[in-house]
Order: sequence, then structure tokens, then C-alpha cells
Amino acid sequence: MAIKTMEDLFLHELSDTYSAEKQMSKALPRLAKAVESEQLAAAFEAHLEETLVQIERIEQAADALGLKLKRIKCEGMEGLVGEGKDAIEKIDKGPVRDAALIGGAQKVEHYEIAAYGTLCAMAEELGYKDALPLLKASLEEEKATDEKLTMLAEGGGNQRAAKAA
Amino acid sequence: MAIKTMEDLFLHELSDTYSAEKQMSKALPRLAKAVESEQLAAAFEAHLEETLVQIERIEQAADALGLKLKRIKCEGMEGLVGEGKDAIEKIDKGPVRDAALIGGAQKVEHYEIAAYGTLCAMAEELGYKDALPLLKASLEEEKATDEKLTMLAEGGGNQRAAKAA
Repeated sequence: MAIKTMEDLFLHELSDTYSAEKQMSKALPRLAKAVESEQLAAAFEAHLEETLVQIERIEQAADALGLKLKRIKCEGMEGLVGEGKDAIEKIDKGPVRDAALIGGAQKVEHYEIAAYGTLCAMAEELGYKDALPLLKASLEEEKATDEKLTMLAEGGGNQRAAKAA
Repeated sequence: MAIKTMEDLFLHELSDTYSAEKQMSKALPRLAKAVESEQLAAAFEAHLEETLVQIERIEQAADALGLKLKRIKCEGMEGLVGEGKDAIEKIDKGPVRDAALIGGAQKVEHYEIAAYGTLCAMAEELGYKDALPLLKASLEEEKATDEKLTMLAEGGGNQRAAKAA
């Protein structure tokens, strides 16, 4: 796909983020099963629900703009999902693995915060008024999920992991 | 490397972030050359200086804790750096490529914000008092760089890219 204009770049970024969310929607059930903390498993399950809505929002944004999403595999998310798989392989189930997966999930959230932040700025510049509220809603959700994960880590998760030593 | 305790996880994360910073220090000169905007090139060059200091801080933190950094290749950063390379290949030099590379750099910054955020939380929990200020200093720098990139995108970069259409 040739990228010559800002419109091309927007479509590329939107399609890339679509791939990222789809990869995440496949990884989250695995993450929920891999953790010990029920609270954390519930957070991953709740984020799966959100992720499915975020996938729909991207489809809606593309429809509203008359754009056809490109088939791209988001390389950034591939690396992040790979790190999560590694952590599950290397660390036995328990509080240390939970701490690792919280950290990994926060990297994913920050990836998505950057992606939606960029998409919002581009949509604003391009006057994509129908797409903007959809992208902003997902941006706010990703920020809230990141904060929730910070609270889970600081509010006991890391303490349990440190005590497990 | 077996990860059994929170101390092991901290060393793994620290080594992973070390690899991420080293990869970034190699990518930044290429990014600075690839962009059209002089302001953006200067921002990438300034961030290279910071990155070199951040690499030293990680070495100092490991020394202070008597830890030996592991040789790990950070998979997450590998994906992000790969995305930047793709953008350079796919997009001709000019404001649209600049917009793409600003977006890519913000994903990197957010990756590092999450990484240092996790490291700070773990260092706090583990009572790693000598390492904590070093990690916090890098965390604050990454946040400041992300904000600078947002200003560069919103303060003209995206506008030039949209007009280039």
C-alpha cells in the first residue's frame, strides 16, 4: 500500500490499530487464564469486552469515512503479544507471573494510547468529524484501563509478588 | 533465565529496557536523517542524547544493586523499530513521512513510559532505594519527550502533512 497523503497515512494507521486490537482480542482470554489473581483475570476479561467494542468502533469509523480497512499485521503489537507469551512460558503461575503480565498489559495499553492519540490528532486535522468521537472514546478507555492496571499492581499485586520471593 | 522471584522479574525487566534503549539509540540517528522537518530532526537528535544517558542510568542502577544485566533482545521494541523502518521504506521524504515517524516515536515513548513505570513500581516494592531515583528520572524524560512530540505533531506537523495531500 503506497502512502502518499495524510489520508493514506490515516487509513494505514487505522488499519494497523485494527490489527493490533484483533491480536489483543485473541491474547486476552489466554492472559485471563494464565493469571492467579481473580481480580486481574476479571480485569482482562472486562478489557476483552472493551476491545471487541473498540474493534467495532474502528469498523464504524472506516464506514463513516467510506474507507476500506487494509489487511496489515501490526508488527508492534506482535512484539508485545510475543513478550506476554514468553512471560507465561518462563514464569510459573503465581504472583510473579501476574506482576509480569500486568507490566506487559500496560505496555499494550500505552501502545494503544499512542495509536489512538495519533489517530485523533490526524482525524482532527483532516476534518474527519464522524470518526473523531469514536476514536476519542477508545483513547479514553485505554487510559482508564492503564490506570486500573496501575492500581492492581500497586494495590497489592506487586506486594504479593515481592512476598512470594 | 528462570524468573521465580520479584527480584528476578525486576532484573529481567531492567535488562529488557536496556535492550530497548540500545535499539532506540541505534534507530534515532536513522530517524533524524529520514525526516524533512529540521525541528523534528533536532528533537530526534536531542532524544538520542537523552537515550544515551538513560542507558547509563540503567547501568548505574544495576551496579548500585549489584546486579548483572542479562543479554536479552527486547521483542516489543524490535516490533516498534521495524514499524519505523517500514514507514521510511513506504513513504517518500516529506511531511507525511514526518507525521508517520512522529506517531511511531510516540509509540516508542509510550512503550518506555510503561516500562519505566513498571520498573519504578517494582523498585519501590523491593526497597531498591538507590535505583529508584535513576528510573524516575528516565520516566519523567520519556513523558516530556512524548509531550514534545505531541506539540510537534499538533503545532504544524500534521497541518503540513494534510496540505501535502
